Amino acid sequence: MTDFVHTRSLFHIPDGVVYMDGNSLGPLPIAAQERVAKMMRDEWGEQLIKGWNSAGWYVQPRKVGDRIGKLIGAAEGTVVMGDTLSIKVYQALASALNLNPSRRVILSDSGNFPSDLYMAQGLLELLDDGCELDIVEPEEVEAAIDDSTAVLMLTEVDYRTGRLHNMKELTAKAHAHGALTVWDLAHSAGALPVDVTAAQADFAVGCTYKYLNGGPGAPAFIYVAPEHADAARPALSGWMGHEAPFAFDLDYRPGHGIERMRCGTPPVIALTALEAALDVWDGVSMDDVRAVSIGLGDLFVREVEGRCPELTLASPRSGNKRGSQISFLHEQGYAIMQALIARGVIGDFRAPDAIRFGFTPLYLGEAEVLKAVDILADIMANRLWDMPEYRRRAALT
Amino acid sequence: MTDFVHTRSLFHIPDGVVYMDGNSLGPLPIAAQERVAKMMRDEWGEQLIKGWNSAGWYVQPRKVGDRIGKLIGAAEGTVVMGDTLSIKVYQALASALNLNPSRRVILSDSGNFPSDLYMAQGLLELLDDGCELDIVEPEEVEAAIDDSTAVLMLTEVDYRTGRLHNMKELTAKAHAHGALTVWDLAHSAGALPVDVTAAQADFAVGCTYKYLNGGPGAPAFIYVAPEHADAARPALSGWMGHEAPFAFDLDYRPGHGIERMRCGTPPVIALTALEAALDVWDGVSMDDVRAVSIGLGDLFVREVEGRCPELTLASPRSGNKRGSQISFLHEQGYAIMQALIARGVIGDFRAPDAIRFGFTPLYLGEAEVLKAVDILADIMANRLWDMPEYRRRAALT
Repeated sequence: MTDFVHTRSLFHIPDGVVYMDGNSLGPLPIAAQERVAKMMRDEWGEQLIKGWNSAGWYVQPRKVGDRIGKLIGAAEGTVVMGDTLSIKVYQALASALNLNPSRRVILSDSGNFPSDLYMAQGLLELLDDGCELDIVEPEEVEAAIDDSTAVLMLTEVDYRTGRLHNMKELTAKAHAHGALTVWDLAHSAGALPVDVTAAQADFAVGCTYKYLNGGPGAPAFIYVAPEHADAARPALSGWMGHEAPFAFDLDYRPGHGIERMRCGTPPVIALTALEAALDVWDGVSMDDVRAVSIGLGDLFVREVEGRCPELTLASPRSGNKRGSQISFLHEQGYAIMQALIARGVIGDFRAPDAIRFGFTPLYLGEAEVLKAVDILADIMANRLWDMPEYRRRAALT
Repeated sequence: MTDFVHTRSLFHIPDGVVYMDGNSLGPLPIAAQERVAKMMRDEWGEQLIKGWNSAGWYVQPRKVGDRIGKLIGAAEGTVVMGDTLSIKVYQALASALNLNPSRRVILSDSGNFPSDLYMAQGLLELLDDGCELDIVEPEEVEAAIDDSTAVLMLTEVDYRTGRLHNMKELTAKAHAHGALTVWDLAHSAGALPVDVTAAQADFAVGCTYKYLNGGPGAPAFIYVAPEHADAARPALSGWMGHEAPFAFDLDYRPGHGIERMRCGTPPVIALTALEAALDVWDGVSMDDVRAVSIGLGDLFVREVEGRCPELTLASPRSGNKRGSQISFLHEQGYAIMQALIARGVIGDFRAPDAIRFGFTPLYLGEAEVLKAVDILADIMANRLWDMPEYRRRAALT
C-alpha cells in the first residue's frame, strides 16, 4: 500500500487549509520550486541557446510524455507534451475526422468540458463540409453511437458531477460501428487507473495542472494509438512536428509517429515544473490512490448527507461510477462555496448550482475530510453563507 | 540616450561568453529567477486555485499583452498572450482569410520562418476549398500583391539574413489591392521600433523568447487591429476566449475584442518569467536600441570583411535595411559556428551555410563585438573549424 504520509510531505498546503480542489489546480509540489530555479539558473542562465541540446530541452516533450504515458497505460513513444488541452483536442479531433473521411458526425455529450465542444465547433466552422457535432446527454451516449459516427469525443470523468464513462466499453462500441475515439483524460490522469492501450482508445488528451500538479496553465499531453501515429494529420502543423525541423524546408512533412503532434517551441520552464511534480508519483500505486480516494469520497457523502439535508448529491453514489470528485447541489451553491473558502475549505463552484470537492489521497486524508464536513455542516445549519460578501458576482453568472 | 550599462547589469551572461544569439533565445534576466520563485511560493503555493483572481492570473495574458503592445505601437487592449507563435499564426491567418472570403491566395515569401508556412499549409489542407499558398522570393513580394491576394503573410525580419521588409509600404499596397496582412514580428519586437498602428497592420504575432528575453518556449502574442477585433473568428475557439468562460455554455460565443484570441488555460509560470523580463524595458528607448544595434552591426561587418575574406555577407549592408542580426555564408558554416561556440562566442547556424550573429545592445557592447571578431578571424585564418568534433551531425542536415 502506498504510504501517503510520504507523498503528503512533498506538497505545500497552507496552514489551516483543507484543499479539495486538486481537480482544478493541484497544489505546489515543494521540489518544483528548486527544480525551476535550477533550470533557470544552470540551464537557461549558463547554457543559453545550447540548452536545447545540452540540457535536453528539445527532447523534453517526449521524455515527459513518456512519464505521463506510464500513468495512463500508454506505450513509450506514444505521448507528447505541449500547448494546452484545447489545442490538443483540436489536433486529435482533426486527425480522427481525417482518418474517417466518409463519416460526418462527431458525437459528444453535455458532460464534456465546454472547451472541448468549443474547439470542435471552431474546427467544424473551418471545415464547412457538412460535418456536425451531435451533443447528447451522458446516459444517451452509448445508444447514440451508430454507423454515422465519425468520432466519439468524450471526457471520461464529467467535470460537473464526477460521473465516469466506461472508456473500454464505449470505445469497443464505437469501433464496432466504424467510429474512432478521442478521450479527454483531464479529470482521469492521476486520479484513477487509466489504460488507453487496453481500452484501445484512438486518441487521448489531457491537462497536467489538476491531478498531476504541474502548476497553473501547465502543458497538455496527447496520446495517439500506434496504429494511427504515422497516418494522423496534426492540422496544427508547426515546425517542431516537422520531419526535419532544422532543415528549414518550405514544405511541411510530418515527423514520425507522435513527433508530428508537436507544434511550436515547447514551454521549457513549465515542463520543468511538471517534471518535479511527476516525481511525486514514483512508488505510488494508482490502484491505491483510487481505493483511498473512493473511501474518502464515500465518507464525505455519508457525513454530508447525514448532516446537511439541504444539499443534494449530484455525483454517482457508487465509488466506481465516479472519478475522484463529488458534487452537491444547492441554489446558493456559490455563496456556500465562498463561505467554505473563507474558513479554509477550498473546493469550487460550477454554474449553475454545484459545489465540487476533490479527493486526492496524495495530500488529503480522513481528518481533513471530517474537518471539511464539520465546517460545511456549521455553514449550512447556521446559514453562514447568507452574507453580502458571499453573493455571486455578476461577472461569473 | 538609454544607459545600456544599466540594462547589462540586469542579465546573467556566463563568464567568458560573448552572447550573439539573442535572436534565438534571450539570456536570463536576473530578476526572473526570484519573480518565478515568488510566484510559485506565494501565489501557487499559498493562494492555490484562488490565485486566478487574487494573484491576477486570469487577466495576466491581457496585462502582459498591453506591455508588449507598448513595444510594437499597439493600443491598449489589442494584444493578448498565449500558446506559441505557430498557434497564433494559425489564428491570425484563419481570421484574416475569413474576413476576406472572396479571395483565395495567401501570399508569403521564402524568407518567412518555415513554421509560419507550415501552419498555413495545415490550415489550407483543412479548408480544402481551393485556397492556395503562394511563396515568392522576398524581393518579389511587392510585385506579387494583386487583386487575388486574400492575405499577405510575412515575417518583417528574415530569420536567415536579417533583411527587413517595409511593413508600412507593403501593408499599404496590400490594402490598396483589398488584401489583409499578417505580420510576424518574431525578429522585430524588442529589436527595432515597430508601430503596427501607424503601419495599419491587420494582424501581428510574435514570440517573446528572442529579443524580449522571456525564456525557452515563452508564450507568444497576437495583435488584432481594433477594426477587426470584434469580427475576427479565432478558429481555435477555446473556453478562455469565450464571452463567458465560467457560464459553461455548450455553445461557443466569442469574447469581446482581443479576448477571443485566448484559447486554453494560460501558462502562468512562463508569463511570470516574461513579466520580469519586460521590466528591463522600463526607461529604454527603442530608438536608442536600434541606433546602437546598427552601429554594432556595421562595426562587425566592417571588421569581419576586413579580416575574414572567406566569409560572404548575406545580410543587407545598410543598417536600416536589416533587423538586428547579421549573417555570413561559408560552406563550412556549421563547423565554424561550433568552433566559435567552443571559444565562447555564441551565435547560431542556419542551414545550409549561414552563420548568424545578433546585436542586442541591452547586453552586448563594442568590446564584445571586437572580441568576437578576433576569435572568428583566428578560427578562419588557422582553419580551427576543421576538427572532427565540429563536423555537422547528420541529424541536423
